[in-house]
Amino acid sequence: MSDPASVFRALHRGRAPGDPLVLPGPWDAAGARVFEDAGFPALATPSAGIAASLGYEDGRTPAHEMFAAVARITRAVSVPVSADVEGGYGLAPGELVERLLEAGAVGCNLEDSADGVLLDPRRQADRLARVCAAAAGRLFVNARIDTYVRGLPGGADPVAETIARARLYAEAGADCVYPIMAPADDLPRLSAAVPVPLNTNGMPDDPPGLRRLGELGASRITFGPLMQIHAMDAVRKLAERVRTG
Amino acid sequence: MSDPASVFRALHRGRAPGDPLVLPGPWDAAGARVFEDAGFPALATPSAGIAASLGYEDGRTPAHEMFAAVARITRAVSVPVSADVEGGYGLAPGELVERLLEAGAVGCNLEDSADGVLLDPRRQADRLARVCAAAAGRLFVNARIDTYVRGLPGGADPVAETIARARLYAEAGADCVYPIMAPADDLPRLSAAVPVPLNTNGMPDDPPGLRRLGELGASRITFGPLMQIHAMDAVRKLAERVRTG
Repeated sequence: MSDPASVFRALHRGRAPGDPLVLPGPWDAAGARVFEDAGFPALATPSAGIAASLGYEDGRTPAHEMFAAVARITRAVSVPVSADVEGGYGLAPGELVERLLEAGAVGCNLEDSADGVLLDPRRQADRLARVCAAAAGRLFVNARIDTYVRGLPGGADPVAETIARARLYAEAGADCVYPIMAPADDLPRLSAAVPVPLNTNGMPDDPPGLRRLGELGASRITFGPLMQIHAMDAVRKLAERVRTG
Repeated sequence: MSDPASVFRALHRGRAPGDPLVLPGPWDAAGARVFEDAGFPALATPSAGIAASLGYEDGRTPAHEMFAAVARITRAVSVPVSADVEGGYGLAPGELVERLLEAGAVGCNLEDSADGVLLDPRRQADRLARVCAAAAGRLFVNARIDTYVRGLPGGADPVAETIARARLYAEAGADCVYPIMAPADDLPRLSAAVPVPLNTNGMPDDPPGLRRLGELGASRITFGPLMQIHAMDAVRKLAERVRTG
């Protein structure tokens, strides 16, 4: 239990309804320290926030720059840090795992779409299985499910498709599933049907809303790039005050 | 005049009293874009802000990481960017100039103390002369003068010592001098005695104060890491709201 992935995994277990694991999303070392100092027990990097901080469009960050940014964050704090590594940058499962461990991550997000198109769920499950095998427990694997953001063939029920994918990914060894942008109303059906913790995305400026997401079935809440966007909003307001005198 | 260093140099010339050149200090690409979007005609990176963002103590950032961070910022914006490169990382003048130009900088800050101790002003002037010679006009060289932050031998007048250093550095070719933390009351004597533009540091949340610094003699105002600190303050408040529910 002293290895950091086990510590991180344990944080997801046995959450009381209404008490989800809330993981802020640092995009640099300074922000990571702020979140650690505020008392959060773990962090989860947002790829979009890191991309913005480095000057890339979301999805365009070169792999070596993403891993370097994650490493700067993990070096800055003592709490466990999970890393959003998008689709895995085309790396073979073993190399992906080694690069994550080298960067000091205790877990990762891996998404099941590429270039805006949902991947075949059985192929994605196979990839997740190979990642989990290579990690051998050293990474907490969070399988992002993009059914709500990529669109389904006309008329398909996203809840059914999300549950089908979540079960495949859990069978493949994923520790958690993350149907990004799932409406709150769908969380009870999703969490009841899925055998692993459910990650959902929340609004950081609505703490009561986070509790409610927990009551609806979320075990873990992340924010994507919203905290980085909040920081930039504060900078924008300051810049405009300075500019206009 | 179309080369970026000339454009940047021209921004310092002929400022009306009370209209100093105000340069915000970006620490990452996202912040740099915010400042450009707010309408600032140029930017000046703060080494302390970049250090914090990368997870280093101020003064401990490895040279290659500082230049890489500057390069990410210059790539993100089209306005000229000057880079605070601290004491120059022990690089020979020619290499320092090449690394700054490779990083896309149009100018640099170089400080006249090391390890908390003021450097001999004639040796610093010699170093500045060699940097200016290597740059051949391609960089706007801002000579930071640390008389106010490093302490002078008992009883010495910081204004006299600052003026002496400023004149030596201007003779050596520096385009601007920056007596960091000079009290506002000293600015009229400093600016009257110094033949190049005078950079002073201001408080970003006090725009009327910036005009007043200009009236007192500052041609250019920068903020050190204060804008990065402002962003982190906003993140801290958000994190505490989320944490306490």
